[in-house]
Amino acid sequence: MKAIVYIGLKPGVLDPQGRAIARSLNDLGFAEVNSALQGKIIELDLSSEEKTEAKQRVEQMCEKLLANTVIESYRIELRD
Amino acid sequence: MKAIVYIGLKPGVLDPQGRAIARSLNDLGFAEVNSALQGKIIELDLSSEEKTEAKQRVEQMCEKLLANTVIESYRIELRD
Repeated sequence: MKAIVYIGLKPGVLDPQGRAIARSLNDLGFAEVNSALQGKIIELDLSSEEKTEAKQRVEQMCEKLLANTVIESYRIELRD
Repeated sequence: MKAIVYIGLKPGVLDPQGRAIARSLNDLGFAEVNSALQGKIIELDLSSEEKTEAKQRVEQMCEKLLANTVIESYRIELRD
């Protein structure tokens, strides 16, 4: 089973990386870019069988290691 | 219009960050994790009207700035 974890900054948290991307794109002539947000995507290959339990375990992984829940939010997708 | 750009390492490229994640999860007791891949996700807010042209422009942004096409591949999704 595969788990895809999307991690992004919570709304209101300063995103200097996103700003740098938007500004650089503007400087390169892409004037249509109003703003940019950068996040992470982590794809896990799991040897789990049961979806509900797998999701709970991945939530624990996010809380303990993958996401900094003070400033980041996460979303989990499971695929067979 | 929003463009979501997914950027990941091409197959075969060494991914030390993914390995570190998988190993740390194993060390924390998540033995079901076989491997991990880490990628980036960039969400762009665009003031474009026309989808086909917007996609071409975002492809140019990936080639010029967002992705390192020697080692990374990218995928673009457009949303209204």
